Amino acid sequence: MRLNLVTGEWVIYAPSRRKRPQDFHQVDKVPETQINCPFCPNNQGDMEPSTLELPLKSSPWQTRVVANKYPALLRFHPTQRLAHGTYLVTSGYGKHEVIIESPQHDTTIATLSPEAVTLVVETYHQRYLALMEDPEIMMVIIFRNHGKAAGASLRHPHSQIIATSVVPRNRRWQEYEAQRYFDQWKRCVYCDMLAFELRERQRIILENKSFVAFVPFAAEVPCEIWIIPRRHQADFGNISEVEKLDFATILQQSLAKLYQKLNNPDYNYIISSAVRYRSEDSQVHWYCQIQPRLTTPAGFELGSGMSINPSVPEVDADFLRE
Amino acid sequence: MRLNLVTGEWVIYAPSRRKRPQDFHQVDKVPETQINCPFCPNNQGDMEPSTLELPLKSSPWQTRVVANKYPALLRFHPTQRLAHGTYLVTSGYGKHEVIIESPQHDTTIATLSPEAVTLVVETYHQRYLALMEDPEIMMVIIFRNHGKAAGASLRHPHSQIIATSVVPRNRRWQEYEAQRYFDQWKRCVYCDMLAFELRERQRIILENKSFVAFVPFAAEVPCEIWIIPRRHQADFGNISEVEKLDFATILQQSLAKLYQKLNNPDYNYIISSAVRYRSEDSQVHWYCQIQPRLTTPAGFELGSGMSINPSVPEVDADFLRE
Repeated sequence: MRLNLVTGEWVIYAPSRRKRPQDFHQVDKVPETQINCPFCPNNQGDMEPSTLELPLKSSPWQTRVVANKYPALLRFHPTQRLAHGTYLVTSGYGKHEVIIESPQHDTTIATLSPEAVTLVVETYHQRYLALMEDPEIMMVIIFRNHGKAAGASLRHPHSQIIATSVVPRNRRWQEYEAQRYFDQWKRCVYCDMLAFELRERQRIILENKSFVAFVPFAAEVPCEIWIIPRRHQADFGNISEVEKLDFATILQQSLAKLYQKLNNPDYNYIISSAVRYRSEDSQVHWYCQIQPRLTTPAGFELGSGMSINPSVPEVDADFLRE
Repeated sequence: MRLNLVTGEWVIYAPSRRKRPQDFHQVDKVPETQINCPFCPNNQGDMEPSTLELPLKSSPWQTRVVANKYPALLRFHPTQRLAHGTYLVTSGYGKHEVIIESPQHDTTIATLSPEAVTLVVETYHQRYLALMEDPEIMMVIIFRNHGKAAGASLRHPHSQIIATSVVPRNRRWQEYEAQRYFDQWKRCVYCDMLAFELRERQRIILENKSFVAFVPFAAEVPCEIWIIPRRHQADFGNISEVEKLDFATILQQSLAKLYQKLNNPDYNYIISSAVRYRSEDSQVHWYCQIQPRLTTPAGFELGSGMSINPSVPEVDADFLRE
């Protein structure tokens, strides 16, 4: 990893994922069939050994966690910083795992059975807790890339987990904004947003006992959805058994909305949870952010960090709700 | 514009650029010919009136600046902030212009004549200075989207300028990092980076009297290139006549490298310059950042703000230099 002195952000170098620069345009073919899919049970022999397998009914495994074959991070210590002239470098220590969400090749969260989605959430939770046990790990990010425009190279339904030994600058800035809000108002900014959304009811799409799904007031992209727990909790690791069920339900319903209304669009989602030492904080609140990839960020977004959203959140919420 | 309370960043809403959500997947066709291209001279009658035209030899105009037909920002004041419950909104005041870089449809910076590229830079400079005259404008961003993956919807060679009435949080953070470095070392971090690059010579691709082009030590994407003036200057507006010529030369040479080595890849570039009130600062230094779009940012990048770069900068520099 190298520190970008201009942004203060770490950049991960992963030459094992590298092609020759001139080959970048030859996009990996997405296997269309089970024959050559590395995540299908018939090819299991070639796969990395699993870290975790959870069964469902007659299936020997329904979800399966394996190390990423082309990891973004290295599995060994140490994590000291080294100066290189003006610059800073560190070894890219961390973990990079793939969660295969089903033995079935042609399905996705939106189309799995509710029990299967609950098992995906259960798998997230177990791996989250296990990875956080390593004291060198500062942050565990669970995310899902669906479709080519969202960066997915394989079609077989899967999520990923990356556990890093650094806290991104970007995350620190987000913490800082929440801290500043808390110091002013003595309230969690996420709890306040949620309370206002529930009062105004203009952007809410779905809700259940534990969660609310809504288009955020300042959504960055068309049809962005946030799923946020009603109960203030900083750490995804603290999710209760009931909340796991409710989260699985609302996650699937939200993705099914996108699937139906936007004809199975490409999307990313991430579970944004507290970093180490912040898991008891009053101003951090975990949430799941779903961003469909309907637009392409361009030079202005790159140069300013701002987003231009051609959709109005209230209109998107109406569209998704109807 | 609405303030994202979580990131502290403004989001611009541009419903005039909106399609119905279900239509997002029907990507605009890029016109292949001059017949239907709105930037070609034969269709000039349908175009917005020009703000600036610069001629070259026999051509009545070589570069032409028009208002964007689907602007991201509104042309009217005021810019007061309004509270909406927990949230903050403001009118999206600003300017959004298109710089048509040539009357010729099938060309690009890499293939234009050197004189024509110099005229593009001259056009950037004149519009930059003119837009900064409005005291409500806090920042002028010049950028270019090349190819569909980079967000370009039209093929005819053009750049864009967006002038905003707000300073993005992201830019403030970048200023803060540079300020912190300056307060520690009493030196501009960009000047220090440049000096180290010139000493190590591992990542430099091109140089001339006024500029150096190099792959940054912490490049975020494969074959990223920065062009930075040797002379410390915060503000692109302060570029001298000689520097304009030298900038046009190194910009074209850099883009020609990408064009030749990577078979005309999609890319964005932006000119990152000081925001209002920062133009004399000792720690801000303008530069041009070119990011080829060879990889797709996915959930991890979205969730962490960090980048995973499969290319090593020194290898990319060798590749581009050879």
